[in-house]
Amino acid sequence: MSQIHKHPIRVYYEDTDAQAIVYHANYLKFMERARTEMMRQAGLTNSDLIASDSAFFVLRHLDIHYLASAKLDDELIVETHIEQIGNASITLQQNIMRNGQQVVASRVVLVCINPDGKPVRVPLAARQIFAAYDHSTPNS
Amino acid sequence: MSQIHKHPIRVYYEDTDAQAIVYHANYLKFMERARTEMMRQAGLTNSDLIASDSAFFVLRHLDIHYLASAKLDDELIVETHIEQIGNASITLQQNIMRNGQQVVASRVVLVCINPDGKPVRVPLAARQIFAAYDHSTPNS
Amino acid sequence: MSQIHKHPIRVYYEDTDAQAIVYHANYLKFMERARTEMMRQAGLTNSDLIASDSAFFVLRHLDIHYLASAKLDDELIVETHIEQIGNASITLQQNIMRNGQQVVASRVVLVCINPDGKPVRVPLAARQIFAAYDHSTPNS
Amino acid sequence: MSQIHKHPIRVYYEDTDAQAIVYHANYLKFMERARTEMMRQAGLTNSDLIASDSAFFVLRHLDIHYLASAKLDDELIVETHIEQIGNASITLQQNIMRNGQQVVASRVVLVCINPDGKPVRVPLAARQIFAAYDHSTPNS
Repeated sequence: MSQIHKHPIRVYYEDTDAQAIVYHANYLKFMERARTEMMRQAGLTNSDLIASDSAFFVLRHLDIHYLASAKLDDELIVETHIEQIGNASITLQQNIMRNGQQVVASRVVLVCINPDGKPVRVPLAARQIFAAYDHSTPNS
Repeated sequence: MSQIHKHPIRVYYEDTDAQAIVYHANYLKFMERARTEMMRQAGLTNSDLIASDSAFFVLRHLDIHYLASAKLDDELIVETHIEQIGNASITLQQNIMRNGQQVVASRVVLVCINPDGKPVRVPLAARQIFAAYDHSTPNS
Repeated sequence: MSQIHKHPIRVYYEDTDAQAIVYHANYLKFMERARTEMMRQAGLTNSDLIASDSAFFVLRHLDIHYLASAKLDDELIVETHIEQIGNASITLQQNIMRNGQQVVASRVVLVCINPDGKPVRVPLAARQIFAAYDHSTPNS
Repeated sequence: MSQIHKHPIRVYYEDTDAQAIVYHANYLKFMERARTEMMRQAGLTNSDLIASDSAFFVLRHLDIHYLASAKLDDELIVETHIEQIGNASITLQQNIMRNGQQVVASRVVLVCINPDGKPVRVPLAARQIFAAYDHSTPNS
């Protein structure tokens, strides 16, 4: 049974702007923290990936809808699941919730590259972690 | 003849991350600076809009492709034009270039809201500025 | 017996720069998060202070020594205690540790202001929280 | 005759927080941009320093007073001069002004390090640039 990964985020002054809402670019930071923690909870860090596989993930494509505005002191939940695991890429859906209300809906495509910037196969350790959150097949 | 607005951005340490490239969320800041300067060059600031019309723009939707990686000390150009001017929304295309190479391609939908978060008609002063960069009609 | 408040911080890509270390300005964010959590754990938020007392804290003075460089995936601990509680100001010491090694040493002076920017007396609710971490007297 | 380097900064939404003022950590970014431009205007970039001398500057000590609050759309000037040029370190004074009013006063100590984090002599190219802004001697 595939899971949804949930990562809590607290909104601090640093995240807000003069409109008294979270600055739009900062939600991308929240989503990247969630992806990092999804791997870390399964024992894999970004530093590990670089050390063992000379590989790291970069964003290739992001489609993001801002549905509501988060505010100072809000507690948000970043919900992440995998839509597709490709050879060198991973497609995720990441939604940000506040008390059951959806604040952000997004689809993220990451590509795994080496230090020369060339796409490389997603390392096995990462694939196994992502598989637990993979919703691409009915029974997954 | 409709124009393309061009805004230069220098990449500083603050913009980069441990992969030695610009952190993906920071391109959104560059694009917001460019939109702000497009208005300012025509004499309109975000502060003006709030003071005169109690209106400000927030992101509603962003679709962004990361095509290459910018690095420390790079000089980038944010190229902006308008795709559509709606009642309460503006759709823009924003591309980020480096020496003629495209680094980022994006489509941005802004919505104009009041302090209560309700959509309001885009103020006339802003509409007139955007019209100069509007590519939605063949002769515009 | 006065306490030291400890707040854990994980280092993400967003915090690092092209030197592969935490960008110096970002430690200030970590310290502000720790101050916020010190209050929140005692039941007081920044939003509460604004709502009930029209008061908020701003930095007046910061003296910070950077002793070592934190890196991606590091887990840091921000250690905070109070040095002095004044009428309209609070002086804190905030140190950032990594595995027992000191990364940052700082002294921070906050001033409590109203929306007009005028110093106001630190609200009682905040004073009581800070008192628990006050090291200014031998027996505190 | 020693000079003061002046670098203009525009305040964008990204720089502000929910108190509708510039978030305190962001002034450090403005000051780092100014230091970078002081070198660049004399033909030296941070990338050059790394490529030619395997050297880069990190903050060792910062003492900063926040005297006033900058706001959205403000145009600030970062004024920089050198207080002392040491073997492996540079001490600067950096003030941030807005329409003749002082917003920030700071003293910054940078140390020049190699990729192993060891202090190294400030490269000659950088020393020569800094010398033009050195106020440490009466006639400089």
